[in-house]
Order: sequence, then structure tokens, then C-alpha cells
Amino acid sequence: MLGIWFDGKTASLRSDLPVPQADDTHSLIRILRAGVCSTDREILKGYRPDFRGVMGHEFVGVVEDSSDAALVGHMVVGELNEGCGKCILCRTGSEKHCLSRRVLGMSKDGCFAEYMTLANHLIHIVPEGLPAEKAVLTEPLAAALEIPERIHIAPGTQVAVIGDGRLSYMITQVLHLSGTPVTVIGRHADKLEAFAPFARTVLLDALQDRLNGSADGACKPWTAEDAFEFVVDAAGNPSGLELAMQIVRRQGTIILKSTYAGAHPFDMSLIAVNELKIEGSRCGPFEPALTLLHESRITLPEPEWHTPDDFEAAFNSRAFKAGFVFSK
Amino acid sequence: MLGIWFDGKTASLRSDLPVPQADDTHSLIRILRAGVCSTDREILKGYRPDFRGVMGHEFVGVVEDSSDAALVGHMVVGELNEGCGKCILCRTGSEKHCLSRRVLGMSKDGCFAEYMTLANHLIHIVPEGLPAEKAVLTEPLAAALEIPERIHIAPGTQVAVIGDGRLSYMITQVLHLSGTPVTVIGRHADKLEAFAPFARTVLLDALQDRLNGSADGACKPWTAEDAFEFVVDAAGNPSGLELAMQIVRRQGTIILKSTYAGAHPFDMSLIAVNELKIEGSRCGPFEPALTLLHESRITLPEPEWHTPDDFEAAFNSRAFKAGFVFSK
Amino acid sequence: MLGIWFDGKTASLRSDLPVPQADDTHSLIRILRAGVCSTDREILKGYRPDFRGVMGHEFVGVVEDSSDAALVGHMVVGELNEGCGKCILCRTGSEKHCLSRRVLGMSKDGCFAEYMTLANHLIHIVPEGLPAEKAVLTEPLAAALEIPERIHIAPGTQVAVIGDGRLSYMITQVLHLSGTPVTVIGRHADKLEAFAPFARTVLLDALQDRLNGSADGACKPWTAEDAFEFVVDAAGNPSGLELAMQIVRRQGTIILKSTYAGAHPFDMSLIAVNELKIEGSRCGPFEPALTLLHESRITLPEPEWHTPDDFEAAFNSRAFKAGFVFSK
Amino acid sequence: MLGIWFDGKTASLRSDLPVPQADDTHSLIRILRAGVCSTDREILKGYRPDFRGVMGHEFVGVVEDSSDAALVGHMVVGELNEGCGKCILCRTGSEKHCLSRRVLGMSKDGCFAEYMTLANHLIHIVPEGLPAEKAVLTEPLAAALEIPERIHIAPGTQVAVIGDGRLSYMITQVLHLSGTPVTVIGRHADKLEAFAPFARTVLLDALQDRLNGSADGACKPWTAEDAFEFVVDAAGNPSGLELAMQIVRRQGTIILKSTYAGAHPFDMSLIAVNELKIEGSRCGPFEPALTLLHESRITLPEPEWHTPDDFEAAFNSRAFKAGFVFSK
Repeated sequence: MLGIWFDGKTASLRSDLPVPQADDTHSLIRILRAGVCSTDREILKGYRPDFRGVMGHEFVGVVEDSSDAALVGHMVVGELNEGCGKCILCRTGSEKHCLSRRVLGMSKDGCFAEYMTLANHLIHIVPEGLPAEKAVLTEPLAAALEIPERIHIAPGTQVAVIGDGRLSYMITQVLHLSGTPVTVIGRHADKLEAFAPFARTVLLDALQDRLNGSADGACKPWTAEDAFEFVVDAAGNPSGLELAMQIVRRQGTIILKSTYAGAHPFDMSLIAVNELKIEGSRCGPFEPALTLLHESRITLPEPEWHTPDDFEAAFNSRAFKAGFVFSK
Repeated sequence: MLGIWFDGKTASLRSDLPVPQADDTHSLIRILRAGVCSTDREILKGYRPDFRGVMGHEFVGVVEDSSDAALVGHMVVGELNEGCGKCILCRTGSEKHCLSRRVLGMSKDGCFAEYMTLANHLIHIVPEGLPAEKAVLTEPLAAALEIPERIHIAPGTQVAVIGDGRLSYMITQVLHLSGTPVTVIGRHADKLEAFAPFARTVLLDALQDRLNGSADGACKPWTAEDAFEFVVDAAGNPSGLELAMQIVRRQGTIILKSTYAGAHPFDMSLIAVNELKIEGSRCGPFEPALTLLHESRITLPEPEWHTPDDFEAAFNSRAFKAGFVFSK
Repeated sequence: MLGIWFDGKTASLRSDLPVPQADDTHSLIRILRAGVCSTDREILKGYRPDFRGVMGHEFVGVVEDSSDAALVGHMVVGELNEGCGKCILCRTGSEKHCLSRRVLGMSKDGCFAEYMTLANHLIHIVPEGLPAEKAVLTEPLAAALEIPERIHIAPGTQVAVIGDGRLSYMITQVLHLSGTPVTVIGRHADKLEAFAPFARTVLLDALQDRLNGSADGACKPWTAEDAFEFVVDAAGNPSGLELAMQIVRRQGTIILKSTYAGAHPFDMSLIAVNELKIEGSRCGPFEPALTLLHESRITLPEPEWHTPDDFEAAFNSRAFKAGFVFSK
Repeated sequence: MLGIWFDGKTASLRSDLPVPQADDTHSLIRILRAGVCSTDREILKGYRPDFRGVMGHEFVGVVEDSSDAALVGHMVVGELNEGCGKCILCRTGSEKHCLSRRVLGMSKDGCFAEYMTLANHLIHIVPEGLPAEKAVLTEPLAAALEIPERIHIAPGTQVAVIGDGRLSYMITQVLHLSGTPVTVIGRHADKLEAFAPFARTVLLDALQDRLNGSADGACKPWTAEDAFEFVVDAAGNPSGLELAMQIVRRQGTIILKSTYAGAHPFDMSLIAVNELKIEGSRCGPFEPALTLLHESRITLPEPEWHTPDDFEAAFNSRAFKAGFVFSK
């Protein structure tokens, strides 16, 4: 079969890959559409040097063969972390953190191919009426939903989101759903425009006078009244957490969605002195993501579709989401 | 001025009431519209025998005079519980529970009149563009929002709402907002229809076989998989809590919104044995209610409007919400 | 072997019981000591009419045979609820609530015998130096520890415990451990004396003037300042919850440990109006119970020991704890 | 009066200081004993260059004059942060974080003097029978109690404490109180000995093989089973947080008590990827600290006492706690 293969250094399109097979606990899925994630790009930069295999973990497909008859023939999406099933993390609902987990497109053959296998319990049926072109966004939307999944944000609480990229866009919509007043802080006036229906937007430059206001160059603290009870860092670089520490209310919470390579200097004494919380947040729940996409209550741009042989363009795309069409 | 007066037994329309006056901490509000709440009806049945004064606590008005210049001239709504400001409840954000509080239309002159006074800090400005006819629903909607205000319900969690009345309708919409899958259980097929856009609906009769299934007449327990993590009791009578105890998951939570007079028999050993939680919930936050009404994200029927002299019809109305027009 | 057998109506001492056998997942335990619980007495009154088998669920024994070599030869205690291992409750750490669970001495042969089998994963090794006569109290102490296991009580928070019986005594000590100021309310001056080292004690009669203070006979509410943030009901009858609703702070929490047969009248509108929480609590964690007994940080009276043939005296005993010696 | 004065650069003993006076809301306190805190040493290193005044914030004294008659004549301790009383932080129970607060010995005259004034509501009466030499440890012990005050740690949960200094010693005892199994990780075998009655102790060096075990020099991850649900960083330098990130369980919590100057490099992507929480923690509740000292349930070394003129020795002391005797 056809698939985009990572050899430890670069990606290539191969047509000689064997079609995998269903077994007692895994279904065979014919891939319809697959989405490119920034993690895929990180792999090409060296994030997973030991991995050899088919790339990709965001997909929509059709179950062709399965030990679970209820799945066969259905259009499905699926979660990427397959745990050992035995450790304390797997036994207490944290399979995605299993230390022995196998991850689609990172330590197990992924979805940038005509066929893939996946553990039955990680598969979710796409609701009737939700097209594949939209359902492919389930996994990234689920990551935004992990915030309300794990953290209680009361409806009227002021929340700031730092960053004006794709992840911020989904997080802002998710928080806006339940009536939360959101302020988005970003670097790009043009990108911020897309947030206007859901949030108050603030250009980062416009904050500089305030942040640099005091004589000694230190950041001027926010007042108690206008500081944010929650700040979500989705900036994608260390400046996000730095800014978050300045604008969060004492005893408030910073939600860390950003990941970036390497160690960076932070003044962590602010955390203790101001009794702040930082909560990291990653992959999230698929079912509510499917519901929200199905009911069109989250509005996301249509991905930019590519054929598999055009994979370099897809990896280099700056679209909201680039993706592949593998079959119809 | 004109107003609907309670003399300890009955209501009457009086035109000889003095116009109240603003003071250092209270604003004078000209009432535009006011809503009738079931609590008003309870008062006529004897719920507050010691009260003498103007009835009513749901309103929209215009601030005519105030020590807070930022309020003057604005269309506003307001909270009903005015605390002492000194006790531990007032000092820790629970003013609505102050044991010495004065309550609009229950222990302090209310809003069924041409003018009313209210403490400045309880007043909320209505956003530009939200008309008075809709803003009058802020207070009852806030009561529904008290559920997500105090309780963390993760997005994909199965929730049941018991009751098909007005309160259930608002609660169901509020929970549906954030993607929560809601099942509404009610007695009336016709009323349940209105819930269909937001929830799965179940007729109470249809549950009987299941609930009465076991030989000895005892209720058949729900299975672990289909029991509900959260059950909201808004039935308005003791059968709601009884049903809730049967369909909630072990270690799950029952949210009690129902109030009804008197003591009724309950088997509370189920609470200990099944390690259930019951959380009572009452008045809620105004700001997110205003936001959701303003953005039309909650859809509520237009109240049925009455003139003040038609107050008996308003009190007897079976509309979703009856109300008074006091001025324009 | 010898054992105390329940035939659906009464208990009898039999000497013709077969010795059970270890299997892949269950160990064979030789019983040293076993404790009588009030649940055993309820069974004799008709609580479990369908049960036939060896009674008892509180024990200390020695593992004689097991597929888990690490257990063999050790003195152990064990948990009573053996779940199916497959349902959502078992998979998320709530095995004790499994709807298909088998319970020692209630739906599975228990510990009032010379030998018993138990699932390996429910067995806990007794720390070196903790004698069997004390370790037999692990299970009841664990039930008291379920309160801090599930509920966060900050160190300086005022807590009331209603009841002056055995369960209250253990709960009071557990709460006192971490510095919580506890007030115990009971009916018996003599029993309350035992609580004095750990708590302020109040005789229920002494509350009557206050509780019945108002003219109309209704209960006079506590002030905001002296109401309790948490009230534990361990009274063992419906008056406990009634009193708890009167003395708990608005928005406070009632922890329900009492179980008693049948439905009793309660005014649940207090729960909604005062936004109270009720949390049921039952069996608890064994490991911290073993630690606290081992380090003698909880002081409990020595059980009153009986021989198996003296079982009627043991069941009728009014000692803090009666128990059986099966072997040494 | 006599007092230790900070002039913006150094400390000196002055005898010409005016005795302060009680007013409507502040009491006059005659200082008996005062403790030296590491914050006092930081001030001498330049932590508060703008401060001029009497140093010190840990004290025991006697109220000599007060508008609150209930305080006069009592031995007392007191909290150090005096808020504005008006902002949202003061109004919601977070006075210690008020942005306009005045802090004893940092922005308001402190307790290293014969007399001091303090806001009445910050004063706590010392229980009868607790001597001044022990009560002086209330403030530092309260800081350790802030952990259970804000964070729910279930009784049997494995907790690691990093650091073998004074703060770790108090935290370890506080956690041990309620039966929590604590592992203390420190650099000094001799210091760790003092922790043995309360905790399992581990020498940091002994972890090196494990931490450096993998070929590429990266840290070998803890297994899921032996990682810690909670890790308290009280190391006092950046290596504490680094180690904490390695030994905490996925989705676990790091409690940050360490403060140290400046920014240091951290790989914060671990927080997001492993969905960790970090919670900062600072000053804590006085009442439970007084209770635990009064009941001798926390055992702390007697401070090393100095006369005020010997202040340099006190500041340079390496005792568990150095302090001053101002009067008897």
C-alpha cells in the first residue's frame, strides 16, 4: 500500500508497504483523510530519532475488519496513545500517560497511509452527518477540550489566552462556548481579527508601556481587579509563560498548553510567592469534540487538502490545517 | 407611585406608595419590566407571613439617581440578596447566604412598582443591544448557571435532568452549551418536545418497567455503564430526588435545585452506602447570564406581559414567564 | 473446619465445613482473629435474607497458600469487596461499588471460620510489630479514614461529629490527627468522656434550649460565625442528619456515615436553599489504617475476645468491639 | 526603645526608637521573643532596598493596649501581611496577597524591638500552657501547614519532600501527622537522621545511578508505580524543581515552597507533556499551628536565644532557629 514513511531522518512516499491486519484487539481502518500536526514537523526536525514507520496520528477512516462487530463499516476517528493496560496509570484512567505506551506515528505505524490498525477501545464512531473533512479535526479540538475536562472554570471568570495561532483559536472557542469572557493576547493584528467573534483581543505591543512602566524596567504588576483568574499559555515559546506570570491574579492558575524544545530561564519564585498554580494540559476527550463538530458549534477552517505525493507541500503549508486525502 | 403590595395575606394594587430615595449606597431604579417567579406565588400561599411590602424580585430598570455616577442612566438588572457586609459569609463571597440579609420582595420592598432602591454593588448594567424584554430573564437564568458556577462537569460527562418545567429548560440549555450530553426525564410528552434540540428526552412512564423490573418490587438498579455521573433534580417535588438516587452512578452527584414545602420520606442510607453526593444550588451569577442572553446563545420564550392592574392574571398565568410592564 | 454459618435466618457453629482452596487469583488464609461488626448483627435481623454461608468480614490471618509468593507466610488483613474487574467502576478505582461484587460474609464465605480465601489484590500485609489483636481493627478504622480520603478538610476548619458511639470515636481521632478542631455532640455524658482528649464535647440535651429557642418551635438557626463548615453524621439514626442541617454553615458540607433501615422524613429544601452538600462515605483505605495502628497514633480499646462456640455472647456484646479467636 | 533597625543597607541596634501607639484598629504589643527568618537575612543581602525600619516578623508578645478589650493582657502571636481591606483579594480571603499590603519587617516596622503595633484582626491569642519559647515557631510552622490548607492529600498517598533543611523538617512532620507516607530526599546524611522518625530518607547521591542510568545521559524516568503523586520542593535552589519533575507521577502535583533569587533554566515542556501541576505555597494558617504546638504534636528544636546586641551572631547562626529575647 501507499504511505508516508519516516526512516529516522526524512520522510518519503512508499508504495511497497504491507497492508496491516486486524487482530483480537485491533481493527483495520482504511484511511480517508489525515491531518498534519506540528508534531509531525517536529519529527522531521529530529524529535523522534529512533522512530521508523508510517507517520501521522490525526485521521478519519472506515473500519474494514474488526473483532468488534459494532465498529465494522463505520466512519471513525481514534486516539493515539495505546497503553499497556496493566500499570497504575492504565488502571486509573490515564492510559495516555502509560510509560510503555505506543503512539501513532511516533512509536507505532501511523495514519499517513492507505490502511492502519488501532486498538478497538481507542476508536470512536463519527456521528451520522459529520463529514470526514470536518471530523479530521477531532483530535486537535479534543486537545483544546482538555482544559474544561480537567479544570473547573466558573462561567463568569475572566480568562486570558496568550497566542494567536491555531491552538489558541480552538481554545478560545471552547472557552467561549460556556459563556466565559476571554481576552486573547497576540502578536499579529491580522490573526487576531479571526478571534473577534469570540473574545476581546489585545495586541501584545499595546501591553508594552504597561508592562515596562516602572522606572527600574521591572514589569509593573497588574492590579488585583484586572488580573486574570486563569491564563492559558498557547504561545508556543517561553515568552508565553513569562507574560502569564505577570497578568495572572495572585493564587490564580496558568494553564500550560505550549511545548517547545529545551530549557529556558524562568523566575519560579513568583510561583511560590504569589501562590500560583501551573497546570499542564495535553490530549483530550474525543466524544465532546465529535459532538461539538457535529452540531457545528465550533467553527474551524476547512483543511487544505493534498495528495500523498504532495507531502512536502503539506508539511510546509502555513494553512490552519493541511491534510491528505487517501481514499473516498 | 403604583405598586403591588403584600399585606401579609393577599396582594393588592396600590397607587399611594411613596417613591423611595437613593442614599450613599443605594441607587433609585425606575422599573421597566418585572417578572413573576414561583416564589411570588408561594408568598401568596403563606411562605412569608411576616412580610409587608412591595412584591417582586426579577426586574429590568433604569438607574435614575445614584451615588455611583457610572450607573446613572443605564439600563440595569440586580441581585436580590442584600447582606450585612460584616459577617463571615459576607466577607468570604457568600453574601446571598447572610443570615441578616434583606431580600427584594420578601423582606424589603421589591420591584413590582414604578420605583425601587437597590444596593449599588448588586446592580449590573445590561449590555448595549439586549432589550428589556429579554434582560428580565437574567435572574432565573443565573440560577441555572449556578450549576456550572459551583460544580465541575467535564465536557463529555453524561448528565440527567429530572423535570420538564421552566427551570429544567434553562438548566438543560446551560449544560448543553459546553457540549455536555444531557438526558431530560419528564412526565409530559408535549413539554419534552421543546427540549429536543438540546437533549435526549425520556418519558417518565417509559422508565417504569425498568424501575419496577425486579420481582420484589424494589427498584432495579441502573447498570454501572448507563448510570449518570450527575443528576439534576428540578422536578419540584420529592419524586425527583427519589428517582435521582436510582439513576445516579455510585459515587456520583445529585444536584438539588427543587424546593418544596415540608418534610418527605427519603431512604438516606443509599447516600452513605453508594457514597453519593448531594449538592444544593440556588441563586447564581448575573454577568454570564447577561452575556449569554446578549449573544442569544440561550433561547427563551418571550414573557407574557401584563399591566400592573391585571396582576391576578399574571400570578395565575401558566406561561413560561409572566411579567409586568411598569414603564417604557 | 469450624465456622459460624448463616442459613438465611440464624447463625450456627458448624464443624463440618470444607477447607476452601487457593486458586490463580485467590489466596488461602488461616484466620487468627475476627471482629464482629454491626453489619453482622443486621444480617441476623434479616438484612441479607438470600445469603447462605460463613459470616464475618473483619479479620487478621496468615496466608497459607497463594499464587503470589510475596504473600505466603505473612500476617495479613483484607478488603471485603471483590469486584468483577471489568465494569467502568472496577476500571476507574471504584471496585468497592461494583454492581456484581461479591462481599465477604454477605455474598461470599467470610472470615468467621478457620480458613477463608480472598483475592490476592485485596490482601494487605500487616507491618512487622503490629499484633493481630490490634490489626483486626484495620477495616473499621479504614472506614473512618475514608473521610479525609475523599474530602479536603483544611487543618483549622471547625468540624462537628454527631454521635458518641464507636464510629464517632474513630472518626474523631482521625480528624484530630491533623489538627482539626472537633466538637462531638452526643447523648451520653459517660461516653463523651472518652472523647475529651481529642475534642470539645457537647451533651445533646444542652443544645435543646438553643435549638428550640424560637417561639414557633422551629429550630433557631446557628449564627454564621459558630456554624460548622463540616458536620459528620455518625448518629446511627435519622436525628443525626436533622441536627446536622441545623448546625452546618450555609454552603457547608454534611458527611453522612450513618446507615439505618427505611425511609425517614427530611426537609430537603434546606439543602437547596442553603446550598449545602451531603457526601456519603463508607469503606476506606487500608494502608494508612495499618500505618496509624502500627505507629500507635490511634488509640482504640482492645476487643473483647470470644471462642467461636461463644458466638451468641459475641453477637450480643456491647463492648467497643467483640471478636473471635480462631487460631494462634 | 531598643530595636534592630535596617537603614536600606545594614542592620544596627538603636536605643532611640519611639514607642509606637495603639489606635482604633491596631494593638500595642510588648515583644517577648522574636525569631530570625531567612527572609531577614535576604533583606541584609539587598532583597528590600527601599525599606527603612525595624526588622523582624516572627514574634511572641503581650498586648499592652488595644481597642479590642479581649486582647489586652494576653500572650499573642500575629500574622505579617496587613492588607488594604478593600480590594478583591482582601474581600475574598486573600489578604496576604493584597497588592497594597504592608508587611512586618519588610514595609512596616517589625518585631525586633521592645514594642510593635499590629492590626487587631491579625493577632492570635496563644493557648494557656504554650510557652513563648515554643509559640515563637507559630509563623514558620503555619507556612508548612499551608500545604494541607490548600491541597488535598489523601491519607495513603506517597509524597516526596526534597530538601533536608528546616522547612522540610516542618513539612515532613505536618504531612506525617495524618498518616501520609513521606520520603525525604536530601544531600546530608547527618541532617536526614533527624527525619527518620517521620519519614523514609534517601540520600540524593544514591539516586544518581538511577537518574543517570540511560546511555545518552538523559534522566531515566521513574516507573509509573514508584513515582510520587505529590512532590514538595523545599530544596531552596533550582535543582529541587528539576528533580521534582523527574520523580513526580504523570498528572501528579509539585508543591513549590522554595524561593530563590533570579531566573533559572527549566524544561517546562515536561509540565504540558506529562500534564503536571505546580502549586506555589507560602504563608499559612496560625490557629492549627498554635494547636499543634500546644498539644506537642509537632516536635521542633528549642531556638538558640540571643540578646538584641548580639544580633550579628543571631543573623549568622546556623541553628534550626535563632531568636532574640526582648523582655520576660
